[in-house]
Amino acid sequence: MRQSHLFTKTRKEAPKDEVAKNADLLIRAGFIHKEMAGVYSYLPLGLRVMNKIVGIIREEMNAIGGQELALTALQDRAVWEKTNRWSDAVVDNWFKTQLKNGTDLGLGFTHEEPLTALMTEYIRSYRDLPVYAYQFQTKFRNEARAKSGIMRGREFLMKDLYSFSLDEKAHAAFYEKAKQAYVNVFRRVGLGDTTYVTFASGGSFSKYSHEFQTVTAAGEDVIYVDEKKGIAVNKEVMTDEVLADLGLSRDSLVEKKAVEVGNIFSLGTRFSDALGLSYLDETGAKRPVVMGSYGIGPGRVMGTIVETLSDEKGIVWPESVAPFQVHVVSVAGKDGAPQRAAETLYNRLVSSGIEVLYDDRDLRAGEKFADADLIGIPLRVIVSDKSLEKGGYEIKDRRTGTTSVLAEKELLSRLGL
Amino acid sequence: MRQSHLFTKTRKEAPKDEVAKNADLLIRAGFIHKEMAGVYSYLPLGLRVMNKIVGIIREEMNAIGGQELALTALQDRAVWEKTNRWSDAVVDNWFKTQLKNGTDLGLGFTHEEPLTALMTEYIRSYRDLPVYAYQFQTKFRNEARAKSGIMRGREFLMKDLYSFSLDEKAHAAFYEKAKQAYVNVFRRVGLGDTTYVTFASGGSFSKYSHEFQTVTAAGEDVIYVDEKKGIAVNKEVMTDEVLADLGLSRDSLVEKKAVEVGNIFSLGTRFSDALGLSYLDETGAKRPVVMGSYGIGPGRVMGTIVETLSDEKGIVWPESVAPFQVHVVSVAGKDGAPQRAAETLYNRLVSSGIEVLYDDRDLRAGEKFADADLIGIPLRVIVSDKSLEKGGYEIKDRRTGTTSVLAEKELLSRLGL
Repeated sequence: MRQSHLFTKTRKEAPKDEVAKNADLLIRAGFIHKEMAGVYSYLPLGLRVMNKIVGIIREEMNAIGGQELALTALQDRAVWEKTNRWSDAVVDNWFKTQLKNGTDLGLGFTHEEPLTALMTEYIRSYRDLPVYAYQFQTKFRNEARAKSGIMRGREFLMKDLYSFSLDEKAHAAFYEKAKQAYVNVFRRVGLGDTTYVTFASGGSFSKYSHEFQTVTAAGEDVIYVDEKKGIAVNKEVMTDEVLADLGLSRDSLVEKKAVEVGNIFSLGTRFSDALGLSYLDETGAKRPVVMGSYGIGPGRVMGTIVETLSDEKGIVWPESVAPFQVHVVSVAGKDGAPQRAAETLYNRLVSSGIEVLYDDRDLRAGEKFADADLIGIPLRVIVSDKSLEKGGYEIKDRRTGTTSVLAEKELLSRLGL
Repeated sequence: MRQSHLFTKTRKEAPKDEVAKNADLLIRAGFIHKEMAGVYSYLPLGLRVMNKIVGIIREEMNAIGGQELALTALQDRAVWEKTNRWSDAVVDNWFKTQLKNGTDLGLGFTHEEPLTALMTEYIRSYRDLPVYAYQFQTKFRNEARAKSGIMRGREFLMKDLYSFSLDEKAHAAFYEKAKQAYVNVFRRVGLGDTTYVTFASGGSFSKYSHEFQTVTAAGEDVIYVDEKKGIAVNKEVMTDEVLADLGLSRDSLVEKKAVEVGNIFSLGTRFSDALGLSYLDETGAKRPVVMGSYGIGPGRVMGTIVETLSDEKGIVWPESVAPFQVHVVSVAGKDGAPQRAAETLYNRLVSSGIEVLYDDRDLRAGEKFADADLIGIPLRVIVSDKSLEKGGYEIKDRRTGTTSVLAEKELLSRLGL
């Protein structure tokens, strides 16, 4: 894409009420727009990153047998009353609205209830199990405060998978596969080194749930990390009893602030009992379906990447989620030679299927480089009189800042062409 | 995908309160699920169709210079008060809700206001124009009645593009390009023959708007079609004056019921004036941006395809939007030979990138064929003792019902392999 066509421009400042580093950088770089506290639109650059993250999660969910669907935001009160989660006294972050005839509706903050109700129409027999269904769907949560940018929104995209299994044993086996899929997701989006599988409160149906916590000063959670074992414990459940159970020693734990980028949770039969989701087993006996839920917020992942991987100049995207693979920047030179060479290179790369942002704007080199640093595309290719004299393009790695001059052939080879 | 893994099953009956043919068929075939009147979830088959339609629209919007973004559902009252569209007395289909602190919020039924407000941060100079921005985003409309299945929902996906142009002339040129892009979309999704560019009310800023109306008994609109010229007039604006203006004669018009599958609308400076979206022209003078809006509901398109292209046995998808390209159906035979051949064929097609639904279920052939007719995949490949004896696979065209036996090589060739 030509940067001159991109309607967003970098900004010197984010809105004055923006206190989160992730939103500050993403707004200044033109990835998102703040509509109000906790409510952000995704602009072309931001949507590209979001789609990359969504694509990685989708691949991992499909790999463990997930079937994608799309549930609705509008929620039927009757379904939620069956699980006692309609009342504002029980769930404190509902947004509610009404039909013209006065019927109360909720805006879904999660989807266990409607999906369990839906599955009663399809799951009847042991032959119908297991089912793993997931979606990328917009959640609404009426948070009292929303000061963490896109890391805690009032409206945000969520990947939520729900598993429906025959029994606890089958559930436990899938739960482990899902845990590994989550590990894969966070590795692939570039958060592998800083994200810990974290033991957290399990609720009524399991000893623990598992959170995926990424270490960052912007996190709202406190975890205790055993760096050698690569696991952590959420402060909420940090007792001597739990440590003994997990074989951890207080001495080897380090306290860290962290953000929960994903969680997986055994639900047992809480929802299937309440909503009548049962099946007939091989002997003809009626048994409740055993459920689990598995969530990742792609926006929170994006915010966490910005919080943890940016530097003083701007964002540093991992290759896997960068809005473009390559940022071609032309620097005005004599007789327009760099511009012509940059045009040729841009067309060549695009026609080879490389995602390129091409800074073809009529601006000073310094402004272009500052914008490129802020936007954070991993590989920069500078086309200038100087680079052409040296026989090619100046390559700059956004993360390390290292530069080198490559001839066209070398550049294409580096890009796998 | 193996049909035995698909969690949905066909159903004999849709919910009793379902009166729309499109929803009846889509529910029975397992494409959608009714949450409540006008609110439908998309199940795996339905989501696949939706994504195909979205993909076609996206290609056409990108081809005319559209930049994709994603705005939010939650709406700020202050922005809508500026255009006098906040009040329920003015807009009768708002869903509204509140933050914990009592702040009123709306759920977006359209997005002229927030996008125009957003653009004030990016459009300053004539050099910043034009901008064409679009999204696929969930709209909420508090319809008093919702009896048309997915053709008129209370919550539904919409592609809305908004154009921001220098002046009326530049706007008019883009408007024509957008009109052609819409013609392309409806042709590509299989509605080309039954969809008419229809002159409709233009509002304050233009003589006419243009609707894309597909002829169907399920439509809520009445249009007058000049079949020779391939255009139509909405009953709303059907006067002698308008006919004279358009060079149409009452005698050559045929009255038809139709559904509005898309519309394009010149907005003039209504929104840019109200929200302060202006730019400095080449002389330094401040001028308002000229806008247009361009909408298509992918769900309504899907519903219209079902209404107009189904037959007494079920749905008949056009190839371009079918959930799968090929439906492989094995028929139980001696020594499991058909099953083995079907497995081999399925694996061969999938590894070649063909989208295949493979009915590997242990059911009678009649049940499988009835399900396949209901689901409506264009090309069926039946693997049975009979077909194997004849040297290959029995191919059935879902639309015409014609059958033939093809050897493997011929089948692969037909699929472009």
